[in-house]
Amino acid sequence: MDRAYSTVDFEPVGRRVRVPAGQTILEAARGMDLFSGGGVVAPCGGKGLCGRCRVRVAEGNLSPLTEAEKRLLREEELAAGYRLACQAAVQGPVKVEIPPESLTGRQELQVAGEDVAVVPEPAVKRFVIKLQPTNINFPQPVWQQVERALMADYGLPEVRVDLELLRCEPVLAAGGAATVTVRGREAGNIFWSVPAPKPLGLAVDLGTTKVAGFLIDLASGALLAAEGIMNPQIAYGEDVMSRLAYALESRENYRRMTRVITDGLNRLLHDLAGKAGVFLQTVEEAVIVGNTAMHHLLLGLPVSQLARAPYVPAAAVPVEVKARELGLDMAPGAVAYLMPPVAGFVGGDHVAMILGSRIDEAKAVTLGLDIGTNTEIVLARGGEMLSCSCASGPAFEGAQIQQGMRAVDGAISLVRLSDGGGRVHFETIGGQPPLGICGSGVLDAVAELYREGVINDNGRLDRSHPRVRLAGEKKIAEYLLVPAEQSGAGHDLVLTQKDIGEIQLAKAAIAGGTKILLREAGLKEEDIEQVVVAGAFGTHLQLASALAIGMFPALPPERFRQVGNAAGTGARLALLSMPERRRAEDVARRVKYLELTAVPGFGDTFMAELRFPPPVTR
Amino acid sequence: MDRAYSTVDFEPVGRRVRVPAGQTILEAARGMDLFSGGGVVAPCGGKGLCGRCRVRVAEGNLSPLTEAEKRLLREEELAAGYRLACQAAVQGPVKVEIPPESLTGRQELQVAGEDVAVVPEPAVKRFVIKLQPTNINFPQPVWQQVERALMADYGLPEVRVDLELLRCEPVLAAGGAATVTVRGREAGNIFWSVPAPKPLGLAVDLGTTKVAGFLIDLASGALLAAEGIMNPQIAYGEDVMSRLAYALESRENYRRMTRVITDGLNRLLHDLAGKAGVFLQTVEEAVIVGNTAMHHLLLGLPVSQLARAPYVPAAAVPVEVKARELGLDMAPGAVAYLMPPVAGFVGGDHVAMILGSRIDEAKAVTLGLDIGTNTEIVLARGGEMLSCSCASGPAFEGAQIQQGMRAVDGAISLVRLSDGGGRVHFETIGGQPPLGICGSGVLDAVAELYREGVINDNGRLDRSHPRVRLAGEKKIAEYLLVPAEQSGAGHDLVLTQKDIGEIQLAKAAIAGGTKILLREAGLKEEDIEQVVVAGAFGTHLQLASALAIGMFPALPPERFRQVGNAAGTGARLALLSMPERRRAEDVARRVKYLELTAVPGFGDTFMAELRFPPPVTR
Repeated sequence: MDRAYSTVDFEPVGRRVRVPAGQTILEAARGMDLFSGGGVVAPCGGKGLCGRCRVRVAEGNLSPLTEAEKRLLREEELAAGYRLACQAAVQGPVKVEIPPESLTGRQELQVAGEDVAVVPEPAVKRFVIKLQPTNINFPQPVWQQVERALMADYGLPEVRVDLELLRCEPVLAAGGAATVTVRGREAGNIFWSVPAPKPLGLAVDLGTTKVAGFLIDLASGALLAAEGIMNPQIAYGEDVMSRLAYALESRENYRRMTRVITDGLNRLLHDLAGKAGVFLQTVEEAVIVGNTAMHHLLLGLPVSQLARAPYVPAAAVPVEVKARELGLDMAPGAVAYLMPPVAGFVGGDHVAMILGSRIDEAKAVTLGLDIGTNTEIVLARGGEMLSCSCASGPAFEGAQIQQGMRAVDGAISLVRLSDGGGRVHFETIGGQPPLGICGSGVLDAVAELYREGVINDNGRLDRSHPRVRLAGEKKIAEYLLVPAEQSGAGHDLVLTQKDIGEIQLAKAAIAGGTKILLREAGLKEEDIEQVVVAGAFGTHLQLASALAIGMFPALPPERFRQVGNAAGTGARLALLSMPERRRAEDVARRVKYLELTAVPGFGDTFMAELRFPPPVTR
Repeated sequence: MDRAYSTVDFEPVGRRVRVPAGQTILEAARGMDLFSGGGVVAPCGGKGLCGRCRVRVAEGNLSPLTEAEKRLLREEELAAGYRLACQAAVQGPVKVEIPPESLTGRQELQVAGEDVAVVPEPAVKRFVIKLQPTNINFPQPVWQQVERALMADYGLPEVRVDLELLRCEPVLAAGGAATVTVRGREAGNIFWSVPAPKPLGLAVDLGTTKVAGFLIDLASGALLAAEGIMNPQIAYGEDVMSRLAYALESRENYRRMTRVITDGLNRLLHDLAGKAGVFLQTVEEAVIVGNTAMHHLLLGLPVSQLARAPYVPAAAVPVEVKARELGLDMAPGAVAYLMPPVAGFVGGDHVAMILGSRIDEAKAVTLGLDIGTNTEIVLARGGEMLSCSCASGPAFEGAQIQQGMRAVDGAISLVRLSDGGGRVHFETIGGQPPLGICGSGVLDAVAELYREGVINDNGRLDRSHPRVRLAGEKKIAEYLLVPAEQSGAGHDLVLTQKDIGEIQLAKAAIAGGTKILLREAGLKEEDIEQVVVAGAFGTHLQLASALAIGMFPALPPERFRQVGNAAGTGARLALLSMPERRRAEDVARRVKYLELTAVPGFGDTFMAELRFPPPVTR
């Protein structure tokens, strides 16, 4: 037997990998292409901090338990052979089971499917060129004929040809006609047929967790396919900061981060093209919106200043780059346009969200929120926009919550309590036995516990309540949501005092941010005429729960609009229409960014918002 | 001793190289960086056809003499240990002497040194931007401040930033001011000082044999440095066709051709910057003109259609490309502009020659000639231009001439005969003892032999002349130009019947091409009011000799202008001034190309022109 290498078998994915002895199970999993299907989540980036990369070791030799594992795994988990993938090093052949809640899974992604209402006016234009056969008596090669026709017949002032196109396409015309794609003054694609396949475009909402792609017919505006994948960088850290930390460790790490997202985008492209039954050579333009860190990691821009004060982007300007320079499989001269970020934590996706929900044009005083690990908030009044970002944390994505998970099959997504918190009614995604609880479920649970009086306005659990118990060595209070026998995870599902605290932090960040924006604008809560809640979580949350815990301004429900993936819509608008793209750039320049940590009194506001408002009855 | 490898010592360059046994001496020489200094010439591309790569083997083991060597080397050369570098394979340690005439040498290059008279209006513009320090209270990074200032203070409609610049430059402003270079709508360079170093540009005349570079101050138009190098591709074939053949052998060969010219251009850049005492980061734009094959090999464009009918370029359109995409060491966002070719054998250098000598604007009927292995001829009348290319062969560059050599030290460049061809007066470049004869010397010699009656109008040597003898097995007539004792080469310098034939071919090609152009334009020779003779050879030739053999139209000498490197001048004009660049593109589109081989009667015209015209007295 080879002493230096060992095999690791992964179940239930049924994959085997051969790794050098001493590698951790997480490293072994990273070496495989599990990311788009089911990899191992590592929110903390494999530092033994989050305890999320639990795996069960069915058999085999591993390194001894570390302190991190003793701290983060329960006794019964340790007894059942659970380890943390980031801690356990392979010392011989191993069989590993990845429990469902540790699998990154293929998530139901919020990819809005409607066509976008805008007159198509894309960056690329098509021209039909008649060609004469090139020969010794008519020695004009293809591109010379194209240039002359574009200038003489179509009145273009000047024509360039993308170098890659010059390199790859036939030189000699065979006669007939061709369809040429021109962008600005440059020809970027050619088809040897009339009519040619339709010009297509790709819109991408590049999130920290999810990547949504839309394949669009640039001529008609029709949506041909929509698809979502997990951001494969998730294997290197679940949140922005752990990914930046990983990328900053070495140039090699940085390059790996860029490579995996490029690979992910190419997979997305191939999936979309497969769904729509088209060739990638017809995809002639891309618009990518994302938070500033994702934007920078894709472009290879400096990121150290994103990870520490003053938290500013290297490029708060629009970037246009040949798609092939980013390694994307598109048409030869295709261009990728990256929507400009506003600030280090207010990315191009925020600009796209404003564009997609038309907040910039709203006459009414409008509050826009896109809730995530960082929640971006914009307050708009008559075209003036003030934006901030608040660190709401990953609780709504299921992280930092003891039995939290993403919004995938088996996640509790809705909770209703009755009998003073004595009875629990819940629903799971896909109707599966519950494995854990996702963002909207946690929000519901906290709101319901408060409404039923199981927690007070400080968030403290009533320790005398029959479903509240003290767990672990440290005797931390927890509320029993689902007993083990009803659970699909094989153990009790609980909501702990710490979980409630995480929701309080998130709520306080969002409500505090909103209050500061209102104060800066000289407005009161009741002045807000419209609240736009964007994003996947924002769309799935129960508005009543969010209002119950005071996360949103106390306004009548009819003032709220849950708009879905507005950032994706904004990306599609900017892809389809150059006037919309210019509008986006105008928005990016007009948005005034407010750095909350630099605002006097923000700390006090935040602390005050940790408390829940007076309860309302449903 | 290592059996598989042997050392080869090269003298007089004093270089040692270790090569696998079985490699030829030429391959060994190619592996070294001898090309810019002194490599081994291989006009035929190392195929054993030209006999130019003579080396003397001082000691060592080599493969047996090949048929090619027996054919191409004289008996006395064989006796003295001469071999052909392309034929002799290394079989053990070898000491090799490269004779002066086989060294590519550093040639005195025709690089015109005057400033060009045009109002500078370059592609790049400079803007001074005041910067505020980036911090948490003013979280605007550099490029956001630049964008806002360019739009608000300078009224630019739209600003992009080159991706490489975004990647490399500091993100946080420290205050003070910066100087930003903008090209079109894109920022391509930044200096953290005011005033910044001057914006510089590079103009290149990329010839098959020579590469001339000019470093220009784009603000004032001043010439800061001029420098010439041999085209390092010469190691893979002296003429266009042998280089194309080499490139077409394999992708690897093609890539090597591109790499060596890129390396050559970078050496040129470094030399120029060193001479002028400037940094390469200040070189913000390049204009490159060259024949179509050189243009294609630099850009990596398809070339097979250049090597066979219909001999058309892949790109007869202007190409703009980031200099870094070509591997050139210039400013981060610098752009290289390649002047458009007209046809497969009428390149961007022809366009530049027309631009530089202003033939396109001439009111008078003007004939323009740029003499080389291919001679491009243009006939212009009131802005209408008709161009052709004729295969005049490499005789004027010293190739195909038994004792031909380039115009380097020791080359006979001027010949005068007297006493009915009994006495020879000659001059050499640098006043060195004669090693061989360069183009202008050969032209002179033939003209003088004709004038003195040593050859007749068919070019036949008078075998009864005392300096004419029959040499070799085949008893070929040759004229003794310089006896061995006066020669620096250690042997007689002669002009053979075959050499005279090569000049007749060249003369017939040029005169025939001119005649066909005149016929197509409906003009007579005497209608030509002005003849522009461009290029290094064209400048150094004795006009009287060219007229004596009928190479040029029989017109009064005052109608001729020998203008030097007009292509280089054209490149500099297009670098300095965008209106001039647009003029060049207009010229490229307006020039009507005439394919001589497709013109009925060209063969007859050519055959008739092999004969010399009635002699004139000096």
